[in-house]
Amino acid sequence: MNEPLKLGIAGLGTVGAGLLKLLASHGPRLSDTLQREIKVVGVCAKSRDKARGVDLNGVRWFDNAADLAADPSIDCFVELIGGEEGIARQAVEAALNAKKHVVTANKALLAKHGIELAKIAEKNGVALNFEAAVAGGIPVIKTLREALAANEVRRVYGILNGTCNYMLTRMQDEKLPFADVLKDAQAKGYAEADPTFDIGGFDAAHKLSLLTSLAFGMRVPFDQIDVEGIQTITAADIEAASDLGYRIKLLGIAERTPSGIEVRVHPTMVPEDSTIARVSGVTNCVAIEGDFSGSLLLVGPGAGALPTASAVASDIIDVARGLVLPPFLRPVAQLAPFVRAKIASNHIGYYVRLAVLDRPGAMAAITRRMADRDVSLESIVQRRHPAGVAGEVRPVADTAAPVILITHETTEENIRKALDAIEADGKVAERPQMIRIESF
Amino acid sequence: MNEPLKLGIAGLGTVGAGLLKLLASHGPRLSDTLQREIKVVGVCAKSRDKARGVDLNGVRWFDNAADLAADPSIDCFVELIGGEEGIARQAVEAALNAKKHVVTANKALLAKHGIELAKIAEKNGVALNFEAAVAGGIPVIKTLREALAANEVRRVYGILNGTCNYMLTRMQDEKLPFADVLKDAQAKGYAEADPTFDIGGFDAAHKLSLLTSLAFGMRVPFDQIDVEGIQTITAADIEAASDLGYRIKLLGIAERTPSGIEVRVHPTMVPEDSTIARVSGVTNCVAIEGDFSGSLLLVGPGAGALPTASAVASDIIDVARGLVLPPFLRPVAQLAPFVRAKIASNHIGYYVRLAVLDRPGAMAAITRRMADRDVSLESIVQRRHPAGVAGEVRPVADTAAPVILITHETTEENIRKALDAIEADGKVAERPQMIRIESF
Repeated sequence: MNEPLKLGIAGLGTVGAGLLKLLASHGPRLSDTLQREIKVVGVCAKSRDKARGVDLNGVRWFDNAADLAADPSIDCFVELIGGEEGIARQAVEAALNAKKHVVTANKALLAKHGIELAKIAEKNGVALNFEAAVAGGIPVIKTLREALAANEVRRVYGILNGTCNYMLTRMQDEKLPFADVLKDAQAKGYAEADPTFDIGGFDAAHKLSLLTSLAFGMRVPFDQIDVEGIQTITAADIEAASDLGYRIKLLGIAERTPSGIEVRVHPTMVPEDSTIARVSGVTNCVAIEGDFSGSLLLVGPGAGALPTASAVASDIIDVARGLVLPPFLRPVAQLAPFVRAKIASNHIGYYVRLAVLDRPGAMAAITRRMADRDVSLESIVQRRHPAGVAGEVRPVADTAAPVILITHETTEENIRKALDAIEADGKVAERPQMIRIESF
Repeated sequence: MNEPLKLGIAGLGTVGAGLLKLLASHGPRLSDTLQREIKVVGVCAKSRDKARGVDLNGVRWFDNAADLAADPSIDCFVELIGGEEGIARQAVEAALNAKKHVVTANKALLAKHGIELAKIAEKNGVALNFEAAVAGGIPVIKTLREALAANEVRRVYGILNGTCNYMLTRMQDEKLPFADVLKDAQAKGYAEADPTFDIGGFDAAHKLSLLTSLAFGMRVPFDQIDVEGIQTITAADIEAASDLGYRIKLLGIAERTPSGIEVRVHPTMVPEDSTIARVSGVTNCVAIEGDFSGSLLLVGPGAGALPTASAVASDIIDVARGLVLPPFLRPVAQLAPFVRAKIASNHIGYYVRLAVLDRPGAMAAITRRMADRDVSLESIVQRRHPAGVAGEVRPVADTAAPVILITHETTEENIRKALDAIEADGKVAERPQMIRIESF
């Protein structure tokens, strides 16, 4: 047996408690596997007295995470506090500066300060592992950093936010309006009281920025990601997508194009018989397309105390086995600068929903604007009355009727300009809805 | 930059040539990533003169793989020869004994001699990596050995043979008989002239034995695996499954049960809306259920020169990064002995197809035999004429009619004994077809 690996764990919320439970129940077997004991020597959390259902006997209590992080008694600091600034950042920096390995589940911290933290880790020859920061129990960091490291990655995309996928799945399966499923998601604890971070696509964008850095070996500034959330998705969109043989999913997509890297988060229509369309509820998935590996899809729980604890434990196991890799695929000095794609990519088509005002020539004006931008239409469906569902408040004027257009392949620029012109013409009662169609 | 990692590659078939292509095209980028050059210094293959589309200038040629394996000029021996005995085994042993790291795609060698080879690797502190041996480009070995190492695995299962999945998919999609799709698979190079190894389930069983060893930390003797192939699957079975809302897939399944580990390969009916049912053609998938990780599904190319080369390259990258792990999750001395489950597991139901002879009381006798074994029936479908398709020779007597039974949950023992009794009664014209129904 080798010397034990001594852990300091900061943050004993659900994931922290899950990790302690894992180490308590699987400790002896892990020691056999690793020929090394993994020993929790110090912990730190907000409240010392809270019942957590775990035995902290013989474990030193710290009131300050940064003190624990730099304490000589530990080899590896596990940060489960969260937040991109404040004590989480201080403690991780303190640990790295004190030459401790760091394992963290903190996607916000890494999306904002990952490169700077990676520099300190590299300088000091310690690990900065963050498997749990993206897609919970799915080992996508290890897959990108190790398994597919020989590939030039062409595209990485996936369902990265369980809250949004849960909401879209319920809207689909039960024909419920957005507001109702949001309330339900909040009641179940899937969505926060202020749900903007999830439903606005920002959580998915944080995760996508980490995946993009790893997939392409680049620093990806968070503000270079185009982010659209699911707030504007209505039951009418879900129903229309379904009629057309599609499902709507919030996807994060990073793609190598001739002019640079395109990184975007937005609702997407995917064919209903595709594997990704079948990923439902809080489940996440990530697809990675490498030039040699081909297309690989990983599907699993995107959150939850136990799957996240499993991911944190795998990072700790790597540290115990002496594996210290550059956090973002290659050494920071070798990372390429981020070059944003100059032209937004073509899509196989766009779904457009318009609330067309009941005025003479409205449809003629709309189709003319589309033609002006070379946008050809695959189908037009006009309904006399709004296809709203019970309980959904639709801000459509009484005199407006929903019209659904499906375009043929066109550029993002053309469709946007056509829709801007239609809106400026005053022929529609609300901002046009536009959803990209992908062919995965 | 560190010292180069010097490779000797034995076997320059499609995978070997793919690997050389990968190293040639991605060499400089890989050197940046690893801060270490990966350099091919020696190769060995059957024919020196064959055109392979790769530049072997400056690379030493060896006529004997075992000489290359032990040559002082190499650090890592890459075995892509194949075969469980003979030169492949000799060369791998020679490399390990000479303290060279070994990377191999040879599932047959590992299924038969893996533990003995792992012992030599451990004793000499070198790696024995075999990502490419199971499910081609899907990083399932790394996932089990590293990402999920903290879990107690409950079940691992998947579509492990692309040939069978291709054939079943075509039978499903195009309503073709078995013999026709086999001929087509042979013409496309997916199936060998003697297809027994693939369609008999033995290739899947080799892979499953490796997955089982890794998932449960056990030595799994290959002869302890129950193997059934797809030879008996007819177009009538595919059609009946489809009518019932199922797809037929050849699955390898290893499961922890209270009485031991159950390891089996057989055709399985899975719900048509499950993710696994959507895995079509030569694509493979592996699902792993851990007690903390939950259920993780990996889907990707199960074979092919480039994906397999990507997997071999990831093993080489691990060696270049200094990662040396016990080949089968934990040191050989820590592996548990294999305890075979004493009772075959229950299934949610069984599909049974009988060619019932047109004699008075035949159905009564059949249902009586089922009842004798406490097998209750969910449905019975009797058709007057065989549901054969054009071109399929069905060995059903003129006077026999196909009857399809779906049972409720029952044990493997009960259904087998009931079918044996039915056959012994002489009420059927051919051996009953029985397919397990799983609820994934």
